[in-house]
Parts: sequence; C-alpha cells; structure tokens
Amino acid sequence: MSKVSPWEFSEMGLRLGGVSGISELMDDLGHALVTGGDRVKMLGGGQPAIIPSIDQRWRERLEEMQKNSEELIRAVSLYDPPRGNPEFLSALAALLRRELGWQISAENLAITAGGQTAFFFLFHLLAGVMPDGRQKKILLPLVPEYIGYANQSVRGDLFRAYRPRVEVTGPHEFKYRVDFDALQITEDIAAICVSRPTNPTGNVLTDEEMTRLSMLASTHNIPLIVDNAYGAPFPNIIFTDVQPVWNEQMILTLSLSKLGLPGTRTGIVIASPEIAAAVANMSAIVGLANPNLGQAIVKPMIESGEILRMSREVIKPFYLEKSRFAIDCVLETFGNRFEYYVHRSEGALFLWLWFPGLPITSKLLYERLKKRGVLIISGHYFFFGLDEGDDWKHRDECLRMTFTMSEEVVREGIKLIAEEVSFAMDESKSA
Amino acid sequence: MSKVSPWEFSEMGLRLGGVSGISELMDDLGHALVTGGDRVKMLGGGQPAIIPSIDQRWRERLEEMQKNSEELIRAVSLYDPPRGNPEFLSALAALLRRELGWQISAENLAITAGGQTAFFFLFHLLAGVMPDGRQKKILLPLVPEYIGYANQSVRGDLFRAYRPRVEVTGPHEFKYRVDFDALQITEDIAAICVSRPTNPTGNVLTDEEMTRLSMLASTHNIPLIVDNAYGAPFPNIIFTDVQPVWNEQMILTLSLSKLGLPGTRTGIVIASPEIAAAVANMSAIVGLANPNLGQAIVKPMIESGEILRMSREVIKPFYLEKSRFAIDCVLETFGNRFEYYVHRSEGALFLWLWFPGLPITSKLLYERLKKRGVLIISGHYFFFGLDEGDDWKHRDECLRMTFTMSEEVVREGIKLIAEEVSFAMDESKSA
Repeated sequence: MSKVSPWEFSEMGLRLGGVSGISELMDDLGHALVTGGDRVKMLGGGQPAIIPSIDQRWRERLEEMQKNSEELIRAVSLYDPPRGNPEFLSALAALLRRELGWQISAENLAITAGGQTAFFFLFHLLAGVMPDGRQKKILLPLVPEYIGYANQSVRGDLFRAYRPRVEVTGPHEFKYRVDFDALQITEDIAAICVSRPTNPTGNVLTDEEMTRLSMLASTHNIPLIVDNAYGAPFPNIIFTDVQPVWNEQMILTLSLSKLGLPGTRTGIVIASPEIAAAVANMSAIVGLANPNLGQAIVKPMIESGEILRMSREVIKPFYLEKSRFAIDCVLETFGNRFEYYVHRSEGALFLWLWFPGLPITSKLLYERLKKRGVLIISGHYFFFGLDEGDDWKHRDECLRMTFTMSEEVVREGIKLIAEEVSFAMDESKSA
Repeated sequence: MSKVSPWEFSEMGLRLGGVSGISELMDDLGHALVTGGDRVKMLGGGQPAIIPSIDQRWRERLEEMQKNSEELIRAVSLYDPPRGNPEFLSALAALLRRELGWQISAENLAITAGGQTAFFFLFHLLAGVMPDGRQKKILLPLVPEYIGYANQSVRGDLFRAYRPRVEVTGPHEFKYRVDFDALQITEDIAAICVSRPTNPTGNVLTDEEMTRLSMLASTHNIPLIVDNAYGAPFPNIIFTDVQPVWNEQMILTLSLSKLGLPGTRTGIVIASPEIAAAVANMSAIVGLANPNLGQAIVKPMIESGEILRMSREVIKPFYLEKSRFAIDCVLETFGNRFEYYVHRSEGALFLWLWFPGLPITSKLLYERLKKRGVLIISGHYFFFGLDEGDDWKHRDECLRMTFTMSEEVVREGIKLIAEEVSFAMDESKSA
C-alpha cells in the first residue's frame, strides 16, 4: 500500500494531536497495566490501588446489577441524556443536600466522560477568545498544578500561573502556599482554578486560603473552579481536617475514578444551573452522550450514603497508610546522602519530592529511572502558565511518585530513585 | 443562596455550550428512554432496537465476563492507554486484515469515547485555522448530513456543503446523488466527509460515487473521511450490495453503538498511523483515557469473527424488515392524501420523508407532532454548510423518523404524521 504524504494539521490539531506530558504518562501507565508490569516499578500514573474490600464491593455490585435487575444491560444498551442519568443526578443532589447542606438540585449537575473532559469544557467555556476578540485566561494561583490541564488549550496561552511561596516545615518536609501578595486578578482573568487535594503535590489548600480565593472570585465576579477529584465527600483521600464547600460562585468537580472506577470515565460538575446546562450541551455536541456504567454502579450507594462510609472508613485510611509508608521509606532510604524535601502529604495518591541543587534536570532523571525500570513523572510538566522568562530552577528539581502500588514496588522504586539522585549529585561533585 | 450574575462565555463556549439540534434531540431521546415513554412515540433518536437474540448475547457475555474471568472488574477499575486497549486493537486489526484484506495493524487504529467524539477530533485536527492563519473547511459533497456534525465548530464555519441532485426513483420514492458537476475542491478544503449509510436519509452512496470521491481526495491529497457507524463490517445495517473499502487516503470510523452498545460510548478510527496517533493524543489531552467496557465486551467476538455473523445474520435482516414495515405503513397510511416521497431506504435506522410544497416548516411540523406525543427530527437541521443565501425550499420540507421501535409505535406515529401533514396542507388550501 502506498503511503500518503502527511496531511497538514490545523493549529488546534497541532496542539491537541501532538505528544504531550499527559499522553506520554497515560501511555506509560496503560501499557504497564496491560502488560502486567512485573518488571516495571510503575510510580508514574494516577491508577488507584485495588483495595481488597472496595474491589470486593464493586464485584458484588456488578453481580447484583446483572442478577437482580436490568441495570447492567440497561447501562450498555441505552443512551442517557447528555447531562447524565436523571435518577443518578437526583440521587447525588439529594446526598449533597442531606450530608453537606448544599442548596442544589439536578439542575446544578452535569456528567462528563471523566473529570479531565470536564476541565476541557470548563476552561474553553469561560476562557480563550471572547466574542469581541478579547483573550481571557484561567488563573492558577499556585503551580505545580495538574499536568492534564497543561496542553488543553486549543489556541494561545490559556493559563496565567504564579509561583507559590515555599515553606520548609520540617527537616525534610515543605509545603507550598498561595502567594497572595503576588496574585493579580486582571480584567482578562476568566476564572481561578485549583485542584484540592492538589495533583501532583498532595497539598491541600487551607480553609483560609480557600476563603481568600473565594472572596477574590466574588469581588471580581468570576468563578472559582475546584478540581475535587481526590476530595470530599468522595473519594475523600484527604488527610487534613478541612471543610467541603460549594456555592454558586464555585464550580466543583468530582470523579468516580479514585473510588476505583477509572475505566468507567465518569466526571461530575457541580455549578450554577447556567454552567451545568452549558456543560451538558457541550457533552451533546462533542460526545453525544456519556458512558453510563459508572453512574449505574454507584447510584444505589449514593442513595444509601454507603459511598460516604466507604470513602471515610476504607479509602481514606488505606491511602493515609500508603502515604506514611512511602514517606518512612523515603526518610530511611534517602538518609543524608543528599539534600531533599518531601511535600507535606495531605491527600491524593502522590509524593512530591524536591531535590534542591539537583545537577541534572528532572526530565533526565526520569529518563535514567525509566532505563532502570522505574516510572515516575518529571516535575517540570506541572509548572505551566508561568512567564516564559521565568527561570526558576525549582521547576527542574522535583518529581512526582505515586504511592499506591505494593510496598515492595514502592520500596524498590524509592531505592532506585535514591541511587540515581545520589549518582547525579556525585557526578557533579567529581566534575 | 444568592444567585451569581451570569458569567461571560467565550466564543467557543457560546458555540458548544448553547442549545443545538443534537442537544435537543439527545435530551428528548434520553428522557423518553429513562421515563419509559409509553405515552411518547419516540421516532426521533438513534437509539438502536433491543433485538432479542442480540440482547441475549450481550447478557451472556456480561455474565461470562463476571464469572469466568477478571474481565468485568478489570474494565471498570483500570485505565487503558489513550489509544485504546492494546489487545482489542490487535484483535480488530487482525479481523480487518483477515476478512477484508486491509493492510493494517494496531498502529492504524484509535478508540474514542463514541463515534461523535471521533468527528470532533478529526474535523479539528485537519480543518479550522491553520498555523499560518489560513482557514480550512470540511467538504460535505451532499447534504442532508448527520446533525451531530453541525455544531461541532469551535470557531467560524467548518463546513462547505453542496445540494444533492434529487432523483425521483418511484411513485413515492427518491434518492439523493452527489452532484459531481457542482463540487469544487478548492485550496481551502481540508478533507471530504460523508456518512455511509447516511444518517439521516438511509442513503448509501454507490461504489461509483465512492470511487469518484476517493479519486478527488487522492488528486488533491486530502483525506476522505467516511462515517461508517451503520456500515460494514459491523453493524452492517446496509441493505444494498456494496464493497467496504479502506486505504491510507481514507479515514474510516466504526462504532459499537448500533450493535446495541451505545451506553458504552465506543468509537473506532481507522486511518494512517499519523492520524491514528494524533487521535490517541487528542484522547489523552481531552479525556485522559477512553471507556473500557465496550472494547472488553466485544473483544472475544472480534477474535472469533462472531461479530460479523451477528451483524450479517441477525442485525441486518432485523433492520431491513423494520425498514420495509415502516415503508409499507407509510404507503398505506399516506395514500394519496398529499404529495410525498420517501428516500430509498438503503441502510441505517431512519426513513427520510419529503413533503413537496409543505406549507409549514418542518420545524413547526415537529412542534405540532411533539404536542401530539410523536417525536421526530425536523429535516432542516441536517442541511448545514450551504451558502447563507441558499433559500432551497426543500430544506424545510423533510423529516427524519426512526423505524426501530415496536410496530405499534411506528404505525401510530406514521398515522399522526399523516394527520398533521394533511391538516397543514388543508389549512393552506382553505386560507
């Protein structure tokens, strides 16, 4: 068969169709999972752990859906409305009213094919080129922020990001803080966006930080978008005592992925009725309808409140223990061989490691580790939206490692990270 | 709770976030399906029929996935790579090589969250604003074309469409033909696109028409995109004897929806390795990964070839009979009460009715029918991409009705269509 000459891609095509941090990551992850990955220490992805009692619960639920009712066949064989399954939306609204006192109905909700798609929709709904030609941006009060946002722009720069204040909070611990003195909400800012708990750092913005961001949003009449994929009320992978909050000035997203259902691609947007309706319309145009299965699986557990108990009593403690194990392992393994800090682990599935003075880039460190069978994510991907001239060295000194895998894989991965960082440090000393 | 003042939407937000033909349709459809819809004659959507033996097969397969293996839990609890499940892609490539002789491997394939998303990606990959500022468009050699494309542009006009030649082929039958004398492939055309069988008309472009389009594409080195959601090798809802064809100049899409699995949202792109890779990257950026379930359900049936037998021996005959029943019903019910033509039914799930001289718009006819409990789609939505000045009256004289529902619903719907058209015709005579 003769090869066609390559066709031109559009500007949007070049942006979305090229290789990106997130496409590399998902490719690494997917292939490691599919091929088994005994030889690969996969500390790179956001794949949630298989938690035995949760896994068992999904199995029971799938069996129930098949045996006792038409639920399973219905989920595969019928289209739901683009906004999501009406019964699921009602059940979720009732849960949020009952448990958290939020004044919402199904009109405030819209389902998307995963949380990431919700952000593609929300960013482009509000920012980019306006009807009169002005350009608007999403303000990220603090980077590092989620790698999955970085390449979502269809045109021009979509983000304006700020460096955080870096606060050393222990011998080998630090925490990022929003630098409120630096933030400027100019006319061209369409919305403020944060993930909380933050992917990649495990940071949880404090209630005070959230209140200040909320006030800024309110003062400028722009939405505060909060990516709550790891947060409360589910999956509740949040280790600090903070308050879940929603109001009409906010757009909050939830996901079923970190409950253990990433393969179902189920994201949830909680917003004003206008925003929720717009997201539903975007789902219709871009994807016709959403995948049904995730909603069908959890619906009765939303109705009964079981999903909150699972999150609080099983999922959160499970990951808290994983986090503590990984930190202990880092402290023990890294010792005093080189300078390092771990971001305070307040939620999500990751440790964020900072090696001040690392003589190689984190990208090179990633490549060296990959050769040794350890997959992590180079930290530089998460620092997007800063001024082009920003030469903050910190950006090349960090990495994200996932702590959800078996203790053996985590321990072995950390050992190899220590070896490679040590080697890089020594290399530079002897040069 | 105080209401926030509405936030500004971007140009893209206004385009994708507004109410569209497809959002209205999917909303009508989804709610009719969810609420049962005994009182609603739902002839509006693309919901495939529940075919008893096919439905039974999906039930068995779901049971098997649960009992004999880890397939079902794996499909919900693990991320696949953005391109799709590697084993599924290999199995599909092998089937297409074996059965159709196409020279392809997994490198030529990419999964999307439904066929419609594939078109959102493909159109914007190739057309729209180019890196140097030129604007490119998708050429539709013939409208009416699929309503789901109409609102997918994020910016400017995405389509250049041509009126077809209208050929009356029987006392109450007609067929659209590509008007090759009119087609102009100018420098700003990025690709040619057709659905075959065509949604909404049930038209199947002839092998000769396809060859001529393929040659035009080749001469101008642009891709020919073929939306094969209803076509061969599966679901094979195609009543004429035509040849499935693919080559590297083509981009062909398939879907699992019309096999009876629309709730899984599974689209398939078959293209050159460069295009398939770009689609996979777009999936990563826009949606992180795809829903797994549809691929997991059909994988062994792709391996064994069962999916082809199901399509050929059950699905195609089922819809052929449905089509014939609906046409007979139309002929019998409409009689000689008014002038009408049915598009020759060569595939897909719809009859396309044309009422020459209809004194009200098809949009008004839709509204009157909706009041009487019959949902159809007004034909005007399907005529997009024509010159703004085009005042072709034909555009307001057609409707699409789905023939997949029970005989009783189809019969009753057709009866009410006849009454409303009759009433409109008489109204105009007596005025």
